[in-house]
Amino acid sequence: MQVQYWFELFGTAFFAVSGALSATEKARADWFGATFIGYITAIGGGSLRDVLLGNYPIAWIKDVNMIYAVFAGIVMAKVFYSYFIKLKKTFFLFDTLGIALFTVVGTAKAISLGVGNINAAIMGMFTAVFGGVIRDMLTNEIPVIFQKEIYATACFAGALLYLTLHSYGVNFDYNLAISGSIIIIIRVLAVRYDWQLPQFKKHE
Amino acid sequence: MQVQYWFELFGTAFFAVSGALSATEKARADWFGATFIGYITAIGGGSLRDVLLGNYPIAWIKDVNMIYAVFAGIVMAKVFYSYFIKLKKTFFLFDTLGIALFTVVGTAKAISLGVGNINAAIMGMFTAVFGGVIRDMLTNEIPVIFQKEIYATACFAGALLYLTLHSYGVNFDYNLAISGSIIIIIRVLAVRYDWQLPQFKKHE
Amino acid sequence: MQVQYWFELFGTAFFAVSGALSATEKARADWFGATFIGYITAIGGGSLRDVLLGNYPIAWIKDVNMIYAVFAGIVMAKVFYSYFIKLKKTFFLFDTLGIALFTVVGTAKAISLGVGNINAAIMGMFTAVFGGVIRDMLTNEIPVIFQKEIYATACFAGALLYLTLHSYGVNFDYNLAISGSIIIIIRVLAVRYDWQLPQFKKHE
Repeated sequence: MQVQYWFELFGTAFFAVSGALSATEKARADWFGATFIGYITAIGGGSLRDVLLGNYPIAWIKDVNMIYAVFAGIVMAKVFYSYFIKLKKTFFLFDTLGIALFTVVGTAKAISLGVGNINAAIMGMFTAVFGGVIRDMLTNEIPVIFQKEIYATACFAGALLYLTLHSYGVNFDYNLAISGSIIIIIRVLAVRYDWQLPQFKKHE
Repeated sequence: MQVQYWFELFGTAFFAVSGALSATEKARADWFGATFIGYITAIGGGSLRDVLLGNYPIAWIKDVNMIYAVFAGIVMAKVFYSYFIKLKKTFFLFDTLGIALFTVVGTAKAISLGVGNINAAIMGMFTAVFGGVIRDMLTNEIPVIFQKEIYATACFAGALLYLTLHSYGVNFDYNLAISGSIIIIIRVLAVRYDWQLPQFKKHE
Repeated sequence: MQVQYWFELFGTAFFAVSGALSATEKARADWFGATFIGYITAIGGGSLRDVLLGNYPIAWIKDVNMIYAVFAGIVMAKVFYSYFIKLKKTFFLFDTLGIALFTVVGTAKAISLGVGNINAAIMGMFTAVFGGVIRDMLTNEIPVIFQKEIYATACFAGALLYLTLHSYGVNFDYNLAISGSIIIIIRVLAVRYDWQLPQFKKHE
């Protein structure tokens, strides 16, 4: 689980970067606001999962390293600001790594708490995407996940794959590698080829 | 409680319809977004109640049928889309049945957990209206319940009536019928005759 | 703790005032909407803290006086509406007393539940500012704390001071007086001299 743990901290840091950038671009936040929104983006999804499951103490209260990871992300966002804004691809890479890992970790935690399969997949997806949803609500945007290329859908698909492999006894490390990779591949292809889910109802 | 349970599933399904329609009309959601917002509209109020009361496992994690009810609602929203949009009255009917039942069920659950009367009424109202509040926040609207005809107020009144009858020993089924009907009647009259609560402060 | 308790009720009432005014000015709320938003502004921060810490029953469910304090605030908001709108300074005073007290009380509660120092300071700040954040989200504003003069920052500084003095064994009453005063002083000076934190990134 060592590798998973480090990835989780990395994911946390990069979600913090994403929140800080968003707060700055959309709400002209000061240092504090950027930190606050970065922090909520990073820990929002996992907090929601733990609160919904009654899994106390919740992740970042149990492990102060997650707070340090957030602060590391804020510092990175400041230092590499121009790079992150220009090199959208760099940023995209880390965001994608983040959601891939958060999905698998969140799904695995839900399973270990005895949650059924569908709900576990929902929890995995929540872990990955809800930090961003809260970020968008705080900066008064319609959450991008409802409008953009395949995003939460990739997480949900990855979570279902994880659960399938898990039911066949595939061990955690391999499962993380496979299911996480699928999420990354779907995301990359979706952005590369501008995949879209069909609109729920066509607008003329 | 059999009847209550079926009504609860129906209420869940129709709130899911409401969320899916709203996501489509206001945020041009794709299939996934419509499902996601429909889902949150349906389970948001009950989740908030259970989390505030520390009542674990929360309703839809304990009972996977609630998830199926949500999916049934999404499918209905797609199939009957034009009907639902045109026949606002059909939709209004089910929404009203939904809040009436959710209010009574939510209040009863709070009472059974030992919550005091005022807070139980608040919990009943939260169960009924907060799914819609979160739906409106996600689609970046000012929640309608703060601006529209009597809505949450009808729920709160019904919850208080339920508590009064409960204190006189009226059994659950009768109480559900009476208190639920009052909510429906207030709602129907409010919309029919355009009842409004007075503005908190007049705007010239 | 008698004094603290009364202050907490006062803080609750004045946050309710703030919510009711905001709902009226920004969302043209009716009586119910003003009460609802006032209520959520007053109990939102403490509820979030208790839910994140798994500290059940949460504050306002345990103690119905907090509900009465909210209603007192709503009545005050109605009766003194014109005063509150005109005399922004009066309102500012009570808001500042509120955040000072809520920060210290929230931090102390977190510590007593065994939470580590950084997280306890975050919880204290959440208690003070998150009611306002939810209020702004409900009325569809970008939360002011991300854009305004030093606000949450003052709470965080006060929480850190509280923790420092606490670690030196300063008793609660003195600590409340000192840390609370620091928050008030920072807030007053920040508004008086228009202190701002630097933008995270300069916008030309």
